[in-house]
Amino acid sequence: MKSLETRILEEGHALSETVLKVDSFVNHQVDPKLMSDIGKTFADHYRGMGITKVFTIESSGIAPAAFTAYELGVPMVILKKQTSKILVGDVYQTNITSFTKGTSYELTLSATYISADDKVLIIDDFLANGEAASGAVTLVQMGGASIAGIGILIEKSFQHGRKRLEDAGFKVSSLVRISKLARGNIEFTEADL
Amino acid sequence: MKSLETRILEEGHALSETVLKVDSFVNHQVDPKLMSDIGKTFADHYRGMGITKVFTIESSGIAPAAFTAYELGVPMVILKKQTSKILVGDVYQTNITSFTKGTSYELTLSATYISADDKVLIIDDFLANGEAASGAVTLVQMGGASIAGIGILIEKSFQHGRKRLEDAGFKVSSLVRISKLARGNIEFTEADL
Repeated sequence: MKSLETRILEEGHALSETVLKVDSFVNHQVDPKLMSDIGKTFADHYRGMGITKVFTIESSGIAPAAFTAYELGVPMVILKKQTSKILVGDVYQTNITSFTKGTSYELTLSATYISADDKVLIIDDFLANGEAASGAVTLVQMGGASIAGIGILIEKSFQHGRKRLEDAGFKVSSLVRISKLARGNIEFTEADL
Repeated sequence: MKSLETRILEEGHALSETVLKVDSFVNHQVDPKLMSDIGKTFADHYRGMGITKVFTIESSGIAPAAFTAYELGVPMVILKKQTSKILVGDVYQTNITSFTKGTSYELTLSATYISADDKVLIIDDFLANGEAASGAVTLVQMGGASIAGIGILIEKSFQHGRKRLEDAGFKVSSLVRISKLARGNIEFTEADL
């Protein structure tokens, strides 16, 4: 998605060889017109595949996932980050450790919002080592549903998240793929959409 | 907003005299068509007031705020819930204690995304005692900006959040106002929009 590449070049900040800040239009301040365009791009790609729900992980994935779900005409489900195991109610949980952020949480899905008939599109803002996306996959599988694909805004292609998901049999569609980051320098490789 | 009232009657669960669960279309699973309608309703009301940014609090406010910002053609800013004070960077923070949830966090805004020229519309899903909304007001004021209004999806009118915000001089526009909750029973009073 050329417009997202351009925006990253204009406003993104490569803080190190692994950290890209896009706080002015994705993570803290959000450009809703861009999110709507992203939603249309994902929906155009995944339309006709029988998708019943769009899943995302709170909270930076919510805006692009909401517009994607809107375009596809299906509900969005927000996977919650809980600090501890929930012992009441019928929920699926999986522990996620983010090496990027040095945090750990229980990714949580109420069993009410998934069934064996569901075909899920997972949308998230970043793909690095794939911990969060793999956790989302685990929860969908716990619910007995199938996965149509994983849509990513910004993939760090020099980390192994994509390989991990593809090796597990899932299709990844990234709007932007970054081949190299260095302080003040961002290089792209060919994206999927 | 009659359609939101109807949806609450159909799918909401009054768990006690203070707790209303709307997990099937607002908080966990989200209906993007409803969120788009909500965005249009808020935008119709606030259009022409010179709003420059829509602020919300992560994470249940993000979907309705994103569609509102989209309709108004302005950026959205997500106020972050940090578990501890951030000691680096130029940020505004205020401590929020939620009596409803028994939690405490530092509501956080990067100074980069607010200026004295901004006129802010605050959007949130629930208004109960007004802790979160008052915290958002505090951060906007720390940034020297003005507040056009506070848009709420579901107001618990039997709690004092609205009075607290109005006494401080702010205009509250709620799509739905609940006058009474009891296990299995939800009563409404006349809403603003």
